[in-house]
Amino acid sequence: MSIIKSFKACDLVIFGTKGDLARRKLLPSLYRLEKLEQIHKDTRIIGVGRAQWNKEKYIDIVKKSILDFSSTKIDQKILQKLTDRFCFLNLDVNDTNKFYQLKKLLDQKNRHTINYFAMPPDTFGAICKGLGTASLNAKPACIVIEKPLGLSLKTSQDINNSVGKFFEESQIFRIDHYLGKETVLNLLALRFSNSIFMNNWNKNIIDHIQITVAEEVGIEGRWNYFNHVGQTRDMVQNHLLQILTIIAMSTPANLNADSIRDEKVKVLNSLRRIDCKNIDLNTSRGQYSAGVLNGKKVVGYLEESDAQISKSDTETFVAIRVDIDNWRWSGVPFYLRTGKRLPKKYSEIVIYFKQPKINIFKDLYPVLAKNKLIIRLQPNEGIDFEFLNKTPGINHKYNLKPMKMSLNYFKDVKESCLIDAYERLLLDVMQGLQNLFVRRDEVELAWEWIDSIIYAWKIKRSKIEPYPAGTWGPYSSRKIIERDGFGWHLNI
Amino acid sequence: MSIIKSFKACDLVIFGTKGDLARRKLLPSLYRLEKLEQIHKDTRIIGVGRAQWNKEKYIDIVKKSILDFSSTKIDQKILQKLTDRFCFLNLDVNDTNKFYQLKKLLDQKNRHTINYFAMPPDTFGAICKGLGTASLNAKPACIVIEKPLGLSLKTSQDINNSVGKFFEESQIFRIDHYLGKETVLNLLALRFSNSIFMNNWNKNIIDHIQITVAEEVGIEGRWNYFNHVGQTRDMVQNHLLQILTIIAMSTPANLNADSIRDEKVKVLNSLRRIDCKNIDLNTSRGQYSAGVLNGKKVVGYLEESDAQISKSDTETFVAIRVDIDNWRWSGVPFYLRTGKRLPKKYSEIVIYFKQPKINIFKDLYPVLAKNKLIIRLQPNEGIDFEFLNKTPGINHKYNLKPMKMSLNYFKDVKESCLIDAYERLLLDVMQGLQNLFVRRDEVELAWEWIDSIIYAWKIKRSKIEPYPAGTWGPYSSRKIIERDGFGWHLNI
Repeated sequence: MSIIKSFKACDLVIFGTKGDLARRKLLPSLYRLEKLEQIHKDTRIIGVGRAQWNKEKYIDIVKKSILDFSSTKIDQKILQKLTDRFCFLNLDVNDTNKFYQLKKLLDQKNRHTINYFAMPPDTFGAICKGLGTASLNAKPACIVIEKPLGLSLKTSQDINNSVGKFFEESQIFRIDHYLGKETVLNLLALRFSNSIFMNNWNKNIIDHIQITVAEEVGIEGRWNYFNHVGQTRDMVQNHLLQILTIIAMSTPANLNADSIRDEKVKVLNSLRRIDCKNIDLNTSRGQYSAGVLNGKKVVGYLEESDAQISKSDTETFVAIRVDIDNWRWSGVPFYLRTGKRLPKKYSEIVIYFKQPKINIFKDLYPVLAKNKLIIRLQPNEGIDFEFLNKTPGINHKYNLKPMKMSLNYFKDVKESCLIDAYERLLLDVMQGLQNLFVRRDEVELAWEWIDSIIYAWKIKRSKIEPYPAGTWGPYSSRKIIERDGFGWHLNI
Repeated sequence: MSIIKSFKACDLVIFGTKGDLARRKLLPSLYRLEKLEQIHKDTRIIGVGRAQWNKEKYIDIVKKSILDFSSTKIDQKILQKLTDRFCFLNLDVNDTNKFYQLKKLLDQKNRHTINYFAMPPDTFGAICKGLGTASLNAKPACIVIEKPLGLSLKTSQDINNSVGKFFEESQIFRIDHYLGKETVLNLLALRFSNSIFMNNWNKNIIDHIQITVAEEVGIEGRWNYFNHVGQTRDMVQNHLLQILTIIAMSTPANLNADSIRDEKVKVLNSLRRIDCKNIDLNTSRGQYSAGVLNGKKVVGYLEESDAQISKSDTETFVAIRVDIDNWRWSGVPFYLRTGKRLPKKYSEIVIYFKQPKINIFKDLYPVLAKNKLIIRLQPNEGIDFEFLNKTPGINHKYNLKPMKMSLNYFKDVKESCLIDAYERLLLDVMQGLQNLFVRRDEVELAWEWIDSIIYAWKIKRSKIEPYPAGTWGPYSSRKIIERDGFGWHLNI
């Protein structure tokens, strides 16, 4: 349920305003929203941190962040309009009493408070305690938190408990920026407003489904962090499982946040557990070694300049065969795949439909190519449907060939009407709309399922396979899908 | 069943080699097939007619026809290669004895005979009698005939009887050039090799279907002929009903000619009869009056320069609501529409799918737009699928908008690999393949159904509605579809 029904003014409190998240993402997004006239005229923004800044100094830093990290040209008038909203409060989150000073800055009567935690999760407890002590945790106040929210069910529960002590679930906005992408948002429209998809979205018609999130980048200076996490926790537990649940969920009763999240939870509850018994058949782990990407030599994971050890079992690639044990998907495998240093950056979902039960072309084609619905999440956002047609030509025989119908999703959309994932989520926070935020039970069920995989890898001492940078991951990635008679979709 | 299984040499006998059909279509098509190296090296072509030509004179005329009526540049070497196959025989079809001379020209041992009747149907009887008398009607000899094959069931039966006396059905190739179009051929591939279409091609999923064959041309100097026939007999009885049967038929057991035609006949047998009781609700007839087309003034049907009377009830436009009373299509109306002097020349089939049974977007969209599969037969040959997507943009609501995925069917096909409808059919005749030719029972069932409509118009003295040239036909055309809550698809 949303906290507020209509768009109204807020006090946006940014904890950790000096950090990377705030500077690179949050502040440039606020600028864009200002430019799009999406920020209420009375909204104010309060940066808090341990720095000894006055307002002027802080605003200089805000301006510099926006100039440094915005991809668009900055209009000084809009920048001024935005920074006029800002002020700064010196506050050490461990100093609970300081939160009374914060309280004085807020106008809770006329504005609801949004507490944006752009800080590491181990500070959340202290912040919440401070907010609670100063009675800043009453509705409609809310908090916004973002990954990493733990590295396991246990650590995730700890975080959820520490914030849950002071804030109800309806006040907590957990960001997964994939949920703000237009192409991910469109999945609901695609699935539930079109009968041809709605009527055919189940085991009787669908053969199998592939979800790929491929990255070109390597570790990008985050080696030490990443080496504790790995691709499975960093990408599958959140982004890939979120996409999976949206693709696999049943029709929600309506578009309310909890109706949708209830259906996603049902999917997570139906995931077949992967453990020591089936880990080898259903997963593939890889780590990139030196290779060539886009014609350039790149080093291996262990040779990255910030690598701190010369041996590591952390995976930079993972592929998982997922079974969903419910009526809709029984017998339909889902294949998830994500990795770094792959040949190409893209995210896509490919739905393979079963072949016709009767094949009147069997003399020429004993096996017919499957129909495919290709949902390109990024880049080249759009939708393709690949199906068989007669190749035009002289031969009187039915030479069948897969051809594609294509939709370029952003073709007719003006740049000025577009909003990026992060901006969308910020805007929804300001409007109190929880649809695109992850509920506690979702996070924890996802962790429970992921934990079992990671535990099994550990117990079985399963080897991590190297793959040269610029290739599609280790051999076992092919094995887990080819064993079922399928192959990874080639994005071309 | 095909007469010959593999491509072999033939004697192609052209009756009426001087006429329009031979000069405009047949001879240029033979040139193209020669160019494409599709004519067997030993094949010969024998023109017959009442002219007193020698071989040289005839070949001059053949060459001139090809030069005059070909759309491609003529290569003299290929033209020579083709005309080397030609000879001419003076023959009056009523002079039965003359057919013995024809026999002498044929090499029935090494070549099968194809008798192409490029003459009016009232001569078919005489030709067949001549061929029969000279024993030129034994298999694998065959005959090729083309519309107009009668103007009613009765006259069609007369023609079929006159040729049926001497030739078996498996020797008779009835041309409907629509069946040779690549996009029409592709309908079988589309419907039966793709599960997403195969599984959803029935009353449970499909809402209604529209078939439009729109012409820009008027009467083109054929006024006197056309005024006896009208658009319904000229276009619906053959082309539109053929498309209808291919779209509506059930899965044939295999791709053999008779398996396919059996299924088409089943559809024709299931057409709900239109008679005096339901003619007004289900049909619309129009005749174009003066108007503007593509910015130019054009005269009305009765003002055409070759119009011979100042009053006429002949329709130049017809729209018909068709019901197919079988399991698959019960309750799914088909709307056929064809006319002259419409704003645009195109042929298309539009399949409308039913809306989802559950609408979770109902707060914003009480009624969801239907999914549409648009099969563009000509021009811009291709396939579109129109479905709802979220409009990308700032608003958090699901603004749904119909968007199109498109396939340009000929995009990647080289011109040199293409073959036009007429060439395809000629080639199939030479290969003895009957799949794309219309069987007697199809023709006669179609006439029976059409006769009932024409009879009802006559009995009810139903008025013909004028429509200005350059518009989409008379008002009643909209009425027959809007009464059901639908509207004609706008081709844009």
